Order: sequence, then structure tokens, then C-alpha cells
Amino acid sequence: MSDFVADPAFDAGSLAVGDLGLCQVRLQDDARFPWLILIPRVTGAVELEDLSPVQRVDVMEAVIQAGHLVRALGELAGRPVEKLNVAAIGNVTAQLHVHVVGRRRDDGLWPDPVWGRGPAIPYVPQARSAAVALMRQALEPVSP
Amino acid sequence: MSDFVADPAFDAGSLAVGDLGLCQVRLQDDARFPWLILIPRVTGAVELEDLSPVQRVDVMEAVIQAGHLVRALGELAGRPVEKLNVAAIGNVTAQLHVHVVGRRRDDGLWPDPVWGRGPAIPYVPQARSAAVALMRQALEPVSP
Repeated sequence: MSDFVADPAFDAGSLAVGDLGLCQVRLQDDARFPWLILIPRVTGAVELEDLSPVQRVDVMEAVIQAGHLVRALGELAGRPVEKLNVAAIGNVTAQLHVHVVGRRRDDGLWPDPVWGRGPAIPYVPQARSAAVALMRQALEPVSP
Repeated sequence: MSDFVADPAFDAGSLAVGDLGLCQVRLQDDARFPWLILIPRVTGAVELEDLSPVQRVDVMEAVIQAGHLVRALGELAGRPVEKLNVAAIGNVTAQLHVHVVGRRRDDGLWPDPVWGRGPAIPYVPQARSAAVALMRQALEPVSP
């Protein structure tokens, strides 16, 4: 048992859908963009430098895998991803997390970044269920 | 000799100050934020997934080192960094590059991200020279 807990702030806008190595993977509930959040299960980590080199390699590879999944979410929505945007910001929620977002030139915010540019448009239930199912099929189950 | 060339678009707002492993390091000429850009010397790379796993490890470690340097730039300016923001976006300039930006709660844009939020405020010459000198001292010389 790890003492890892995702900051409850993440619950407001995203849903845990599985694990990728060291990271909890969350689907951002915003139908504007295929968007995953990776939270390394390292208690107290705020910056990438708070991870060990081995943990950083794990997170980098999770970012690559999450990119593939974000592309799959784009295909599912009939809007293939044209560019991936990857960021560790943490100005609002400090717990270390990495965003992996699929972008298109016609996505309404292009070329600006998505962060701080709301409001989110929650998925309709059927699309959310399909996205969650696709992610759960591809990922390890969420750890306790 | 590599056939790597940084996209000339980077010249408009930043200055090559050295190398960190695989990456060319550029100082963003924006006195609002201590800000480095890392460009992996891999011709044609646009996404992190275009790098090999070994190259990705190199870039991740360059990000960590760049974070230390961004903190040093913040100290030089008398404005210690409170949070690092790291991102690979590339919606405007496609060539793969990673931003490492030092943020403070009083920096005027907090908690929003800095990208697409201009205009930049170029360094005054003396401060630019001091920042460049600090970076050159810490980095390997820029490769040909």
C-alpha cells in the first residue's frame, strides 16, 4: 500500500481511468480536447526534480504512452489529433502532474495553450462512457 | 557535424547560450520570466515520441538541469523562482522544443501559463549580458 492520494482538486474536472507505470492516469472531463493527466504516485512531489532519475524515466515513458492514448481518444471522437501538447505546470494544483493534450488547428483555442482557458465542456454521458471504456481497456487498473 | 539547425523563428525571441547534452539551450529574451528553451538536436523531431527512449532520457535530464539554471536566473534578477513550468507545445513553431519557465505568484500572469501571453519585455542590455554570461558559464558551448 502506498500512501499516495491524488489531490481532491482533480476530482472536480477529471476521472481516474487507470495506471501507467508510476502514474495514475485521469481523463479530463472536457470534450473540447482529448486530454489525459498523469499523476506520479510519489507523495509530496511538486516538481519533476522531486522525482528520482529512475522515476523520471518512468514518467517520460508514461507521457509517450499517454500521447498514443490521446490520439486514440481523438480518433474515437472523429477528430484525429494533429499536435500533442505536454506540460507540467502546477500553478493551481501543486501536486506534480503532467498534462497530455491533443490539439487540432480547428479546436477553437489553437494555437494558444489550453490551460486556464475554460470553461470546460463536460462530455455527454455516452461519449464519456466510451472514452472511459477505451482508456480502461488500454491501461492497468487504478491502484488502490 | 550534425545537420541540425534551430528553426530561424527562435531567433526572433531567444538567444542560443549553450548546450545541455542533446539539446541546444536558448535564453528567452523576456525579462518578465527566467525562461529557457531546449531544442533537441534531432532533425525532423516534432513530438517527444519522435525521440528514441535514450534521447528522451537525455532530454528529461536536460529539463532538470535547465530548471536549476532557471532558478539561478531568478536569483540573478532578485526574484527567486517559486514554481517551474515545463512544456512541449509547438503549436506555433513545430520543431520539437521544451520550455522551462520560472514563475512567481507576483509575476503578473500567475496562475496562467505564459505561452501566447505577450508581449515579451526584452531584457535591458546589462541584464541580458549578465544572464547570458551566467548561462554560458554553466553550459557546454553551443555546438556548431
